[in-house]
Amino acid sequence: MKNTFGSSVQITLFGESHGKTIGAVLDGLPAGIPVFPERIAKQLELRRPYGKISTGRVEADRFEIVSGVFEGKTTGTPLCIIIPNENVQSGDYTLLRSVARPGHADYTAYVKYHGFEDYRGGGHFSGRVTAALTAAGAVAIAALQGKGIRIGTHITRCAGICDRGFVDMKEDIGELNGKVFAVLDEKAGAEMQEAIRIAAKEGDSVGGILETAVTGVPAGVGEPWFDTLEGILAHGLFSIPGIKGVQFGAGFDGTDLRGSEFNDPFRMEGGQVRTLSNNNGGINGGITNGMPLLFRCAVKPTPTIFREQKTVDFRKGEDAMLVPKGRHDPAIIHRARVVVDSVTALALCDLLAQRYGTEGLGGTGCFTD
Amino acid sequence: MKNTFGSSVQITLFGESHGKTIGAVLDGLPAGIPVFPERIAKQLELRRPYGKISTGRVEADRFEIVSGVFEGKTTGTPLCIIIPNENVQSGDYTLLRSVARPGHADYTAYVKYHGFEDYRGGGHFSGRVTAALTAAGAVAIAALQGKGIRIGTHITRCAGICDRGFVDMKEDIGELNGKVFAVLDEKAGAEMQEAIRIAAKEGDSVGGILETAVTGVPAGVGEPWFDTLEGILAHGLFSIPGIKGVQFGAGFDGTDLRGSEFNDPFRMEGGQVRTLSNNNGGINGGITNGMPLLFRCAVKPTPTIFREQKTVDFRKGEDAMLVPKGRHDPAIIHRARVVVDSVTALALCDLLAQRYGTEGLGGTGCFTD
Amino acid sequence: MKNTFGSSVQITLFGESHGKTIGAVLDGLPAGIPVFPERIAKQLELRRPYGKISTGRVEADRFEIVSGVFEGKTTGTPLCIIIPNENVQSGDYTLLRSVARPGHADYTAYVKYHGFEDYRGGGHFSGRVTAALTAAGAVAIAALQGKGIRIGTHITRCAGICDRGFVDMKEDIGELNGKVFAVLDEKAGAEMQEAIRIAAKEGDSVGGILETAVTGVPAGVGEPWFDTLEGILAHGLFSIPGIKGVQFGAGFDGTDLRGSEFNDPFRMEGGQVRTLSNNNGGINGGITNGMPLLFRCAVKPTPTIFREQKTVDFRKGEDAMLVPKGRHDPAIIHRARVVVDSVTALALCDLLAQRYGTEGLGGTGCFTD
Amino acid sequence: MKNTFGSSVQITLFGESHGKTIGAVLDGLPAGIPVFPERIAKQLELRRPYGKISTGRVEADRFEIVSGVFEGKTTGTPLCIIIPNENVQSGDYTLLRSVARPGHADYTAYVKYHGFEDYRGGGHFSGRVTAALTAAGAVAIAALQGKGIRIGTHITRCAGICDRGFVDMKEDIGELNGKVFAVLDEKAGAEMQEAIRIAAKEGDSVGGILETAVTGVPAGVGEPWFDTLEGILAHGLFSIPGIKGVQFGAGFDGTDLRGSEFNDPFRMEGGQVRTLSNNNGGINGGITNGMPLLFRCAVKPTPTIFREQKTVDFRKGEDAMLVPKGRHDPAIIHRARVVVDSVTALALCDLLAQRYGTEGLGGTGCFTD
Repeated sequence: MKNTFGSSVQITLFGESHGKTIGAVLDGLPAGIPVFPERIAKQLELRRPYGKISTGRVEADRFEIVSGVFEGKTTGTPLCIIIPNENVQSGDYTLLRSVARPGHADYTAYVKYHGFEDYRGGGHFSGRVTAALTAAGAVAIAALQGKGIRIGTHITRCAGICDRGFVDMKEDIGELNGKVFAVLDEKAGAEMQEAIRIAAKEGDSVGGILETAVTGVPAGVGEPWFDTLEGILAHGLFSIPGIKGVQFGAGFDGTDLRGSEFNDPFRMEGGQVRTLSNNNGGINGGITNGMPLLFRCAVKPTPTIFREQKTVDFRKGEDAMLVPKGRHDPAIIHRARVVVDSVTALALCDLLAQRYGTEGLGGTGCFTD
Repeated sequence: MKNTFGSSVQITLFGESHGKTIGAVLDGLPAGIPVFPERIAKQLELRRPYGKISTGRVEADRFEIVSGVFEGKTTGTPLCIIIPNENVQSGDYTLLRSVARPGHADYTAYVKYHGFEDYRGGGHFSGRVTAALTAAGAVAIAALQGKGIRIGTHITRCAGICDRGFVDMKEDIGELNGKVFAVLDEKAGAEMQEAIRIAAKEGDSVGGILETAVTGVPAGVGEPWFDTLEGILAHGLFSIPGIKGVQFGAGFDGTDLRGSEFNDPFRMEGGQVRTLSNNNGGINGGITNGMPLLFRCAVKPTPTIFREQKTVDFRKGEDAMLVPKGRHDPAIIHRARVVVDSVTALALCDLLAQRYGTEGLGGTGCFTD
Repeated sequence: MKNTFGSSVQITLFGESHGKTIGAVLDGLPAGIPVFPERIAKQLELRRPYGKISTGRVEADRFEIVSGVFEGKTTGTPLCIIIPNENVQSGDYTLLRSVARPGHADYTAYVKYHGFEDYRGGGHFSGRVTAALTAAGAVAIAALQGKGIRIGTHITRCAGICDRGFVDMKEDIGELNGKVFAVLDEKAGAEMQEAIRIAAKEGDSVGGILETAVTGVPAGVGEPWFDTLEGILAHGLFSIPGIKGVQFGAGFDGTDLRGSEFNDPFRMEGGQVRTLSNNNGGINGGITNGMPLLFRCAVKPTPTIFREQKTVDFRKGEDAMLVPKGRHDPAIIHRARVVVDSVTALALCDLLAQRYGTEGLGGTGCFTD
Repeated sequence: MKNTFGSSVQITLFGESHGKTIGAVLDGLPAGIPVFPERIAKQLELRRPYGKISTGRVEADRFEIVSGVFEGKTTGTPLCIIIPNENVQSGDYTLLRSVARPGHADYTAYVKYHGFEDYRGGGHFSGRVTAALTAAGAVAIAALQGKGIRIGTHITRCAGICDRGFVDMKEDIGELNGKVFAVLDEKAGAEMQEAIRIAAKEGDSVGGILETAVTGVPAGVGEPWFDTLEGILAHGLFSIPGIKGVQFGAGFDGTDLRGSEFNDPFRMEGGQVRTLSNNNGGINGGITNGMPLLFRCAVKPTPTIFREQKTVDFRKGEDAMLVPKGRHDPAIIHRARVVVDSVTALALCDLLAQRYGTEGLGGTGCFTD
C-alpha cells in the first residue's frame, strides 16, 4: 500500500518539495458531499507558515480539484487535488545531495532510493506534501460534519508551556477551528509563540504535544484486532513528519494509575451509555464507545536548525559538519495540527465506511438515523 | 483487512476466550525457515500467567501447527497454528452478557455485534487470543534471527518503579529473552512484583511502560508516507489489549527539547553511518537509519479489578454496580511484552519482505550480503 | 494479500492435501447470520467425489467451526472452520518430490518454494483445499440468501456435450442446488457422465465449462476501475484449480457480434429497469445493473491421467517419464461447481459490504429496504 | 482498494472524460528506472484514435510527469502523470443525464452515485481514462524491459476475421510493438479494417479478441490461492472498458480436449525446464513455469452505435428511444491492446516485487542473476 492509506476510503499522496506539483487522490467517499473550495482554502491557510514563527517559504497553495467533483459535489469517483509548487529555490539544497541533515530523511532516502531520490528540499519527505493531505482532509472533514462529527486539535504543550485542557468540548472545538495558533488559553499561546521566537533567534527549534478531540463518532466503530481505532489512527498519524508518539486517553501518564483509578465507570445519561471519566480516550477494545475520542501526538522539535551540527557526507562516507541554509520553521506544531485533523478525518471516514458502507457515509446514509 | 495484519507477510487471528480453539494463520513467510516447536513453547510459556502476580487461569497452551511446516521448516504456504482452550470456566461470565466491565470491551462489542458476540471471558477481545499471536510471532522472530535481527523488550516502568535503560544492547536483549519478568535491573523487578502483589491484595491492578529495542535492522526499511515504520509498528502494537500509547525514541519526553538537543548527529563508525544519540528511535522520515529501533508502549492497568464499580446494564439501559468474579491478572505488563515482541517481529518481516521480497527474506536472500 | 481474498469480507485459506488439517478463516461477515451445520455439510457433500467419475479418495469432511459462531449465529468476529485430513495415503506421492506431473504445480511449487514445499498430494495446491473454501462459502451463501440473493451453477458443457441454458432462472437455480451432477437437462448429464466413465477407462480425463447465474443482486454494486464486479469475481475464480478462463455474459462468443446485436436494450418492467437481452452478464461498466449475473468458467481436463507422459525430474534436471499412481478424478467439473458458487458468494459479500457496510449486509441492514 | 490496483507496485487512476485532467499515480516502482518521455508518447500515440476506424475526438495527450521522476529516472516515490483534457465537447452529452446508452455505464453510474456522477462523456467510466493507464503502463513496461521481459498483444480476431498466431515469439512481439493496428498478418489486418469501416458506415460497431504473449518472466511468480497470476492479471484486465472475457493458454477452446491432449509435457531444453505445448499459458497452479505467458481477452463491440435503440429514461422511469450523437469508435480493439499491455506490465511488476522486493525489481536487483 505504501503511499496509500485506507481501505474503503483511501488517500494517495504524490509530489516533491521542489517538483512540479504535489497532490492527493481521495477515493471511496460517497457521491453528493458538498465541496466548498473556500473551506479547503481555509485549511490550507491554517497550515501555511505564520508570522515570525515559521519558514520564509510561503506558498499561495493555489489548489485545483481536477477530478471527482461535479457541480460542487463529490461524484463518488476519485477526487484529485493538485497544488503546484510556486515558491521554489532549489539552489539552497544542492549541498544536501551528500551531507545529511541530522533528524531529517536525507540519509535514509539515500539508502532506500540508492541516490535516485529528489533530494531538493526533502523531496517526497518534505512537510510540503502535507498541503495535499490537508486539502484532501478538508473534504473528509466536510463529509464527517454532514454526519455530526467534529474534530478539534490544540497545542496542549509547546516549549514546556501548557495550554488548558478541553472543558466544553463542542465549544472549544468550534473555537479552535478558526485559530491560526490553536490554543484554548490565549495567554499560554502568547508565551508559546514568544518561546518559539526566542528559539528561532538562537538558530534553534522547539517541539510540543498536540491534543485532539472528536465528538459525534457513534459507538461500535473499529475492529478488535489490528484494525482497532487506535491502530488505524496511529498508522496515519505517524506519517505526519515530526510525530514520534501517539497516545489515547490517559496514555503514558495513566500507566502509574491503579485500575480502580483508570477504569472509566459507565453511567446512563439521557438514555445514552456514557463514561464518567475518559481515560480510555473513547475507545474500548479498539472500538468506539460513544464518548469523545481523545488522543495526543508528540511533535519533535523541527530538525532543521541554524547551528553547526556533526553529520556525515554519505556519498563520500566521511564525517562532515553542517550549517543548514534555506528557509525553515523554528516550530511546526501549530501547522501540524491541521494535518492531524486531516488524517483523523480520513481515518474516521474509512472506518465509518467499513461499518456503514459508502452508502451509510453518504447524505442519505442510515447511520445517523 | 480487519483481523489481518500485514501486506507481504501477514497474520490473521481467530478464536474466542471460551471457544473451542484460538489460532493464527501466518502467510507470506519464505520457505525453508526452521520452525522449532520448543521455541514456540518457550514464548508461550513466557506469556503464561506467572506466580502470584497473574490470573489463576493457566492454560497448557498445547499448540499444534496444522499447516505450512514440513520436515521442520516453513513451506512458504500459510502456516496455521491452533491452540485449544482447555481451562475454561464459562459460568463465571454469564453476568457480563448485560453488565459492562469498565475499561473492557463488553459494551463496545455489544454495540458493534448487536448482542451476537461471544461474551464469555471477553470472547474475541480476550487477551487469550494473544497466545496465538505469540505462537505465530515466535516463527517470525526465528525468521528475523536468521537475518541477524534481535528483539528485546523490558518493563521500563511499572507501578511507578523504573528499570534501568539499555546499556549493552545486544547483551541486554539476550538476557531479557530468557526472563519471565523481563527487567534489566532485578532489584527494580523485585520491587515491581511486590507492588503488583500489593495491588492484587487490594483487589486492584497496575499498569506500566514497556521499552523495546531491535538490533540488526538494515537501513532503508519503511515508506515515507503512511507505511512508515512507526505507522506500521503502531498499527500492530495498538491491537495488543491494554496498550494506549506508542512512542519512538525520545517520544513524548523529547518534546520539550530544542532541535539542537533532539537531533541525532551522524558520524561514521567503522565504515558505517551511525548517530551519536538515538532520539529518533532509529527512524528518520519513516525509514530505518541502521541504528537500533527503540520504542515504548504504554500498558494501562488491567481493567478487571475486584472492587465494586459503577457501570450500566446495557441490555436494560440502566445503571448497575459490578463486582467482577472470575480469574484475572493484577498486571499484564510482564506477559504483554512477549506479545510486543511478536507484533514487532511480524511487522518487520512484512516491511523487509516489501523491500527485499519473499526471496530476500529467505535463507539465501540477498539482503544480508 | 496472497492466500487471503477480499477487502471488507475476506477469506484466508490454509492447509495441505496430506497435512494435519485444512481450513479457512472467514472475516468481516456481520453478526447474527444463522449458521446451519447441515448446510455446510450439504455443500461439502456436493463437492465430494461421486460414483465412478471421481477419485477413490473419499473424505468424510468432518468439519468443525472453532470460532466465530455462538449460539448458532455468526458473532461478527473471525469464523474459522477446520477440516481434518483423514484418508491420507502419502506413500503414493513420494515420486513427485522430483518428477513433475504435467499440468500440475509440482514444478512451479518447487521453483517458488525452493524444494521446501509439502509435495505430498499437491500440498497446498491440492483441490483438497477447496473443501475449506466450500465450507466457508456455505456461510457466505447463507448470508446472501438472507438478502434474497441466489446462486446456481450448472455444467453447460462437458466432453463436448452441452446442457440446456437457463430458462426460468429462479426455478433452475433451485433445482441445481440439490443436484450432485448439476445439469439442467438430465439426458445431457447422463451422456456427460458416460463420457467421463469412458475417459476414465482409457486412463484419461475431461474438462468442460460451468455457467453460473446469480439473481437478486441489487444494481450499483462494483467499482468503475480495478474493483469491477468482473475483476473481483475473476480474481477469486481463477484460484480454483483447473479454471483457465472466465467470461461474462456473451463473453468470447459475443465478440463476432455487431454492437447493434450485442447491446442490451433497456426497458421498464414493473417499475424496474431491465434489459431485453443479457449479453453483458448483468454488469455495465464494472457495476451491476440489476439483471441476473451470468458468467462461465473454463475448467481444463484434470491433469492427472493414467498414461505415460513425458516430463522432467526437476531435481536432477533431466528428462523423465511418468505414469502417475494414486487416486484422482477423471473429471472435476461437477465438483468444481460447488467451489464456483462459494467463491461467487464470498466475492459478492465483499462487494456488498463495501457498498452497504457490515451493517447493511447484516440482518437489519438497509439495502433490502 | 477500488480505483487502486496492486499491492507492492500499485496504480491509482483518476479523472473524467470531460473533466479538467485525467491521471495516474504509480507507486512502488524501484528508484533508478529510466523514464523516456518519448516512449510514453509512443504508447499514447498507439492508443489514440486512428484513421477512419476511430472516433473523431483526437486528443494531443500532452502528458506531464508531475512527480516521482528526477533527472530522467524514477525516484522510487509516487510517480504522477497527468493528461489534461483538451478536445472536449460537452454539449453532445447532456441528453445522457437521463437516457441510458445500452451497453454503457450511464444507468449503473446513476444508481451507484445517485445522480451525482459526472455524466458527460461517460465521466470516470470513459475509455479516455485509459490514456492515463497507458502512460503509467509505459513506465512499467520500461521497468520490465530492464529485466528482459517483453509484452506483445495482437488482434487475433476481429469482425470474424482471424490473424495468424505467434510463431517466433520474440520477433513477433518486436514487430507488434511498432504497429498502430497490431496484427501479425497484414492481409488479415487489412480485412479487419475494411470490416470496421463497413460497420462504421452502417452506424454499427465490431468487437474481437486480443491475444497477448509475455516472454522472459522467471518461473515461480504468483501465489497458489487468490493471488494467482491468472487472478491478478484478470482482476486488472477486466477493468479495461469492453473486456468481457479473459482466458489463459487454451482456455475455453481447450475444455473439449482430453487431459492427455491438454497437459503440457515437460522437457529439458538447454538446461532449462520447458513444456512441449503451452495449453496452460505458462502458468501451473497459479505460478509461472518459465514458459511464455499466453492469454486472450474478449473485447465486446463498442456499445455506442448510430442506430436507434430501445432504452429508458432512468430519471423519469420510463421507456425511451436513443440515437446517440457525439464522437465514437466503431471499434476499440486496436486501441485496447495498448491498454492490455499496460495492465499486464503493471500486474507483473507487482507480482515480481512481491517475490523479489522493490530491490529485486530495481536495476541492481538479484532476480536477473
